[in-house]
Amino acid sequence: MNSKKYLLQESDIPTAWYNIVADMDVKPRPIINPATRQPLTAEDLFPLFSEEAARQEMNTVDPWITIPEPVRDMYRIWRPTPLVRAIGLERALDTPAKIFFKNESVSPVGSHKLNSAIPQAFYCKEQGVTNVTTETGAGQWGAALALACRSFGLDLAVYMVKISYNQKPYRRSIMQTYGAEVIASPSMSTKAGRKIITDHPNYQGSLGTAISEAVELAMSTPNCKYALGSVLNHVSLHQTVIGLEAEKQMAMADAYPDVVIACFGGGSNFSGIAYPFLRHNLKDGAKTRFIAAEPAACPKLTRGKFVYDFGDEAGYTPMIPMYSLGHDFAPANIHAGGLRYHGAGSVVSELRNQGLVDAVDIAQLEAFDAAVLFAKAEGIIPAPESSHAIAATIREAIRAKEESTSPTILFNLSGHGLIDMASYDRYLAGDLADYTVDEAVIEANTQSLTQVK
Amino acid sequence: MNSKKYLLQESDIPTAWYNIVADMDVKPRPIINPATRQPLTAEDLFPLFSEEAARQEMNTVDPWITIPEPVRDMYRIWRPTPLVRAIGLERALDTPAKIFFKNESVSPVGSHKLNSAIPQAFYCKEQGVTNVTTETGAGQWGAALALACRSFGLDLAVYMVKISYNQKPYRRSIMQTYGAEVIASPSMSTKAGRKIITDHPNYQGSLGTAISEAVELAMSTPNCKYALGSVLNHVSLHQTVIGLEAEKQMAMADAYPDVVIACFGGGSNFSGIAYPFLRHNLKDGAKTRFIAAEPAACPKLTRGKFVYDFGDEAGYTPMIPMYSLGHDFAPANIHAGGLRYHGAGSVVSELRNQGLVDAVDIAQLEAFDAAVLFAKAEGIIPAPESSHAIAATIREAIRAKEESTSPTILFNLSGHGLIDMASYDRYLAGDLADYTVDEAVIEANTQSLTQVK
Repeated sequence: MNSKKYLLQESDIPTAWYNIVADMDVKPRPIINPATRQPLTAEDLFPLFSEEAARQEMNTVDPWITIPEPVRDMYRIWRPTPLVRAIGLERALDTPAKIFFKNESVSPVGSHKLNSAIPQAFYCKEQGVTNVTTETGAGQWGAALALACRSFGLDLAVYMVKISYNQKPYRRSIMQTYGAEVIASPSMSTKAGRKIITDHPNYQGSLGTAISEAVELAMSTPNCKYALGSVLNHVSLHQTVIGLEAEKQMAMADAYPDVVIACFGGGSNFSGIAYPFLRHNLKDGAKTRFIAAEPAACPKLTRGKFVYDFGDEAGYTPMIPMYSLGHDFAPANIHAGGLRYHGAGSVVSELRNQGLVDAVDIAQLEAFDAAVLFAKAEGIIPAPESSHAIAATIREAIRAKEESTSPTILFNLSGHGLIDMASYDRYLAGDLADYTVDEAVIEANTQSLTQVK
Repeated sequence: MNSKKYLLQESDIPTAWYNIVADMDVKPRPIINPATRQPLTAEDLFPLFSEEAARQEMNTVDPWITIPEPVRDMYRIWRPTPLVRAIGLERALDTPAKIFFKNESVSPVGSHKLNSAIPQAFYCKEQGVTNVTTETGAGQWGAALALACRSFGLDLAVYMVKISYNQKPYRRSIMQTYGAEVIASPSMSTKAGRKIITDHPNYQGSLGTAISEAVELAMSTPNCKYALGSVLNHVSLHQTVIGLEAEKQMAMADAYPDVVIACFGGGSNFSGIAYPFLRHNLKDGAKTRFIAAEPAACPKLTRGKFVYDFGDEAGYTPMIPMYSLGHDFAPANIHAGGLRYHGAGSVVSELRNQGLVDAVDIAQLEAFDAAVLFAKAEGIIPAPESSHAIAATIREAIRAKEESTSPTILFNLSGHGLIDMASYDRYLAGDLADYTVDEAVIEANTQSLTQVK
């Protein structure tokens, strides 16, 4: 193991986020306001999100959006993050491929989620908001927003998917240590929660349900906004600091990726690493492949339908043109809780529709096999979510060996797994299973939805 | 929170460790071979440690010891670590003191322990050793050595203090993920373990007992060496990379510490940050104060006796001239498991004896109060051990405000607490208690030991 790091200076932290929509010839289909059946406007979103987040969401014009100085200031806590040439992993695989990874696990909450939590909290603060709500699956996003809200003096309530609330108590404690209120979802504190508990008393929750609860609380609480950790365009663009830094660092290594890989839940870390490189494909024609690594238990980009669907389980959100398994799809209880979301955002869905983005689905055991191999080879124990990106990388590296090619592969290590060791424990004990999804279930969950033409 | 980081380049990773013994006018008293009653030689240690570690342990001549290139290569995985001006904490305390911390929590195992695990594993490998044993308290050292042994292809068996084995399953899983064997101590696998289980069936273990078991296994296994994570001089000198980097970084900030603070278990992180600065005190006279922050439940430097004592519970080790609470002292089950050790090493004990090092004892609740304040102010959740250093720093910062002085304080953040959230949970629930030690217990445990004259 003598992998090489490529380090930037604080002055290299990007000064603007990249908004890929501005560079797309064929724009994503508009999100639809279900009340008017008309394309959503930024103003439609003002009751829910901070005004600046809403404006960024609808911005199809400006490719670069300036990062406010107080946000860059907080990025300095842990950014720039290292780019690593994974020589240990290359050796372990005996592959001619060159493997690089961007290490987003070095943030104080252990994942990339802070990249968007900070600006979202900042814009709320700027606007005089006092209270914020959100949902969290595995707890990575909730922990990041808890830290960001604490830093800007905002009160935060987090609906945490019940299975994670019980299986991942450490993540709950992290949010509470930063001063956030954490509620297991579904809960009796919202109409959406009460309904699903009444219908399904043993339901262990999903991101879709937790979003419904957080949105409902935000809409019924004075001076309160909602913040989302993935799926939407303003979140994705905040995450492009990952790829923009990586671009400079690949240049330091005198390299450019033939393949870019990231795990895919709602798309935040995937967009973050992919879009800055994808902009060169948009301008100069294809030179890099982009692979979204999904869990086989929740394969919306790989096997879902391109439909207009709700972002949440209860149907509170607008209709998003998305690759989806249906908003009431209940994913199996895999340990990569952050990937248990039914749909993909409108931007990545359109890119997928245009053939600019690929996807693969990875079984749970393959992901953990890859995780342990990586931990032994590179010293870092990856989050179960990130392990899907590692597994997809290993597939590419093995193929390179079989085909005697030497591609340059870049993947995003979105987070570390030190707070997920209970999952590793079960894996090491041989207690984990693989899950897949029946085609009939996908058909049944999506058949009533309008297809995107 | 807009704290400032001072970052070095990989080329700034030190090329040599600092051996403070060479610069001490009055050397530490020699460690005694109990069989011969003579001062120990390096050769006496060859059966137990790698030969190079044994030679470093006894080296009183060379102030600088070259870091082997394969070790520096592995240091590059996470070093150099950031130095941070803790402006968030300064504001939260409204103090005129300037507070800096060295952030050793950024290593892949979350603590400073890798700094010595890597060279110890390397020297074993160089010598053709195939098997290594060690003990671990909270699990920080065991996790670090598991990663280091994996990297050099060595098999590792870890005796983990039973209370931590049960209370901190995540740390156990980390070691197992890196491929180490982990045994709860006391165990039935050694004579020392069987004896104490027979005498005290419900004993929850201590570092002293776990050391006895690891030493016994090393001595009875072919081609096997033992590695220790603290206390001894060769461990302390490996850790000086912390202070040597910090010295350069303080210069970047145009500052020099008036006070240096670190938590104290066996002394590894304290020595690491303190000795490089203390060398200037030795040469130019006192300019910096050094404070070891101990738990009130295990206050050897604050309240122990300066005696010849064993390093382990069963009495397998040589007699070390140490500030000690007695080798059979059983510390209360505080959550800072890494600080539950009865004695201090011979070097720091001599420095304390000469008045060159101070110590304070911190109650468990004060440490957790400090930890949560720090997490909210600086974003990083500290390890329960490191929280003792933060509490001592806060005491100094409050005193500065009361006395209208503005000292520059540097403390070492030895590790993060993301794997210790169960402890935070209990603290937030109000379930933690304070512990102290009766003077009569210290007297009883040390009265049969020979005082150092």
